[in-house]
Amino acid sequence: MPRVSPERLQSRRREILAGARACFARYGYEGATVRRLEDEIGLSRGAIFHHFRDKESLFLAVAEDDAISMADTVAKHGLVQVMRDLAAEADSPETTGWLGTQLEVSRRLRTEAGFAREWEDRKQAIAQATRQRLARQLEAGILRDDLPVEVLAGFLELAYDGLITHLAMGSNSSNLDTILDMVETAVRRR
Amino acid sequence: MPRVSPERLQSRRREILAGARACFARYGYEGATVRRLEDEIGLSRGAIFHHFRDKESLFLAVAEDDAISMADTVAKHGLVQVMRDLAAEADSPETTGWLGTQLEVSRRLRTEAGFAREWEDRKQAIAQATRQRLARQLEAGILRDDLPVEVLAGFLELAYDGLITHLAMGSNSSNLDTILDMVETAVRRR
Repeated sequence: MPRVSPERLQSRRREILAGARACFARYGYEGATVRRLEDEIGLSRGAIFHHFRDKESLFLAVAEDDAISMADTVAKHGLVQVMRDLAAEADSPETTGWLGTQLEVSRRLRTEAGFAREWEDRKQAIAQATRQRLARQLEAGILRDDLPVEVLAGFLELAYDGLITHLAMGSNSSNLDTILDMVETAVRRR
Repeated sequence: MPRVSPERLQSRRREILAGARACFARYGYEGATVRRLEDEIGLSRGAIFHHFRDKESLFLAVAEDDAISMADTVAKHGLVQVMRDLAAEADSPETTGWLGTQLEVSRRLRTEAGFAREWEDRKQAIAQATRQRLARQLEAGILRDDLPVEVLAGFLELAYDGLITHLAMGSNSSNLDTILDMVETAVRRR
């Protein structure tokens, strides 16, 4: 086997994850057969499973990638901005991929106690990013101060979960911008 | 076969639907095997499928029942009240049954174009009940009047979808009452 540079390895992994994300989004976890993963990623099963042990590991890697990127965006720009980005790009392959992963994670959280335990750290990282940003906004005087940050965070998370369902059902989204303005105003100082 | 009164027939149907709802909630649509349906309903498959053609008809009857009952509660008490009832009874068998049906309907709306067409009337009935009630509240001067009713309805629907996801994941709901107050305040006149 030829030696491969770490950069090359990293870029190959990213390539595989992007294809896998698209495949999970299109067919669902169950429907994403190895054959379909090969087609979407453009590599043989041998090459794919050289980098990831199995389909399950591949899905977890996609989901972790998304969770890290979400915690990062929330910390920098807030949960409302994550929602605005999703609403603005509702039909893009990126959003479709994102929704697919979020729905599969939700399904597992509901139905698999073991997964819920494994996923706890990821969930906490996103929850904490949301609360830390809200706390900074409170200090800056942008946020309403008559309710605990925990309640404001819960409100934003409810809206986020609702948006995921809404977009996943391909619902009409002509008013989404104004609705997200309402969500943002509800947590701000009057 | 002995003659059965229409009342008797009706009560038998309701009995079957209640058991089927509980069974779908516990095992999901796929997991609700005929054997499990028999156990939960307490009747033989012969008796069950004398009233409903097959498992699919049984599920559709449960889902339609829920949709009618929801449109009715929304018309009388509003969508926020539906949310408050669900939050207050988050662990009851009724709420668990309700969530199970809603999630299965969502899943089909996402993945089955045929079901989405069939379900359109049910969806419209609930959407219309929401809008009609909001229009009455607007006339009564309770609602904010700087945004179209359509936007306020969309905001409430987003919160409702978020609540379903939140409760279905068995999330901590200690702040739900205050969060639902925020939702209600956001559509009201200041």
